[in-house]
Amino acid sequence: MPTQACAAADAWRSSPVGIVGLGLIGGSIALDLRRQGVVVHGVAHRQQSAERALQRGLVDRVATDPSVLAGCGLVVLALPLDQLLAPDPALVAALPPAAVITDVGSVKAPVLERWQPLHARFVASHPMAGTASAGVEAGLTGLFAGCPWVLTPAAGSEPQALAAVDALAVALGARCISCGAAEHDQAVALISHLPVLVSAALLHAADRGAAAAGAGPQLAQLVRSLASTGFADTTRVGGGNPQLGLLMARSNQQAVAAALQTYSQCLAELSEQVQQGLWPALEEQLRQSQRLRADFVDRPASP
Amino acid sequence: MPTQACAAADAWRSSPVGIVGLGLIGGSIALDLRRQGVVVHGVAHRQQSAERALQRGLVDRVATDPSVLAGCGLVVLALPLDQLLAPDPALVAALPPAAVITDVGSVKAPVLERWQPLHARFVASHPMAGTASAGVEAGLTGLFAGCPWVLTPAAGSEPQALAAVDALAVALGARCISCGAAEHDQAVALISHLPVLVSAALLHAADRGAAAAGAGPQLAQLVRSLASTGFADTTRVGGGNPQLGLLMARSNQQAVAAALQTYSQCLAELSEQVQQGLWPALEEQLRQSQRLRADFVDRPASP
Repeated sequence: MPTQACAAADAWRSSPVGIVGLGLIGGSIALDLRRQGVVVHGVAHRQQSAERALQRGLVDRVATDPSVLAGCGLVVLALPLDQLLAPDPALVAALPPAAVITDVGSVKAPVLERWQPLHARFVASHPMAGTASAGVEAGLTGLFAGCPWVLTPAAGSEPQALAAVDALAVALGARCISCGAAEHDQAVALISHLPVLVSAALLHAADRGAAAAGAGPQLAQLVRSLASTGFADTTRVGGGNPQLGLLMARSNQQAVAAALQTYSQCLAELSEQVQQGLWPALEEQLRQSQRLRADFVDRPASP
Repeated sequence: MPTQACAAADAWRSSPVGIVGLGLIGGSIALDLRRQGVVVHGVAHRQQSAERALQRGLVDRVATDPSVLAGCGLVVLALPLDQLLAPDPALVAALPPAAVITDVGSVKAPVLERWQPLHARFVASHPMAGTASAGVEAGLTGLFAGCPWVLTPAAGSEPQALAAVDALAVALGARCISCGAAEHDQAVALISHLPVLVSAALLHAADRGAAAAGAGPQLAQLVRSLASTGFADTTRVGGGNPQLGLLMARSNQQAVAAALQTYSQCLAELSEQVQQGLWPALEEQLRQSQRLRADFVDRPASP
């Protein structure tokens, strides 16, 4: 028999869950919830996506009109950041006042600022999972298992609403992490948005360096023939969706600019060591990089 | 029946092939050659590695003394760059004068400069394959299949010696590419050595940015909790073996310094766009990055 607290946190399961946007994140949430017996009402942008979402079994009911959200106890806004920051007034009007509302945007301070005045039970959250796929075909089961799902409570966030979103994340197998919105935005600037720009600059540098005056005429062809797994890994995020990269930089401008400044300093130190032949200093920096990589990436996920 | 040219190019198969250094590259060459019925004589640095190389079936004969190379028609110097650039005089003295000698170093101009005066039949080459493993346990079959193997002929390179090394690379399934040593070194500076430094700087920036004055106390922990696949990919080569990174930068200093300068300019342009909010320009840069990635990485390997 569930305890009182568990029963309260699980109350969201007893009404339909609304999901606005049935792409990779929305579709994956929908699939996992339906497998657990939760009723899902979806809002799709286009009629064609709505039909496909039904065919794929992502939703119990679906419409392009947000009135399908009536009766939902929890609504997830699984929309791109630009639509989240300039929401459709018809969507805002259709959100049940008693429902808990959350989002999945990758930047949190501007989302909170926009949405707190719009709905009393809004909770900002960010599930950190993804693949390169998008659209109504992209959703898959188990996407969030073991991934971080960040909640950024603010002054005025309602404790019961926070508990419901926390319970949703736990139900999907994610690791819940709670922090301030500004802290979240600084952290993702460093480990998610900065890598995109660092990686994009590497693609431009390889192209420009191979075409530079003084380079042999074959060099542009040669760099393309020789680029292998190391180059492929380091440039993966820089070669991704340009709109996503732009949205991240635009909606997290201050933190991304600060991260770029810190990065430029770190790079300038390494450049100085190479240009001046300061080999023991360079070796020490690379030793530290090796330790930092293990610290950031290779350690086991916290429970 | 083989043509005259094929028979000549295959002449190296009829005598033992010597391999100096039985780590990942040397051991993998040895394994593939023995599978093809070629007799392999190995030189190991330590007695223990020599014994293990025999046990693993990497070699027909092996010793720590380079006199085991007597009678070899082709010798591959599969040594780290520092040992290649300051070779053991006993090794140089033991190389049969009639043998074709090649190396596998990742920088070619200094290797050519060092080795051309040491042996009349020296050919500089660079098989571009690898895993993170090292040592006598690392060698594996088929490592070079489909990978580029660069030959850098110089004034004075003997055509028959070049043909023999080309035939070796082809026998191992590699794609042979021929270019000047300076061109090779500029190309690997851009697509292999620069990524290491760009990626190392990202690790330092994430660490330093999270510890910066004004950052919340939780931020250092938070960036580590949130670092996911994008960060892992972009920092993989920067978190690799520090000695390898140092050797690359040190032995290819001029080209790496030039690549870093080009990179700094590309990064400064992106930074300016973020800081000034030049969003259409940033979007265009990111669009170009996406196209460049496809051009560098996703296109099919040339035949």
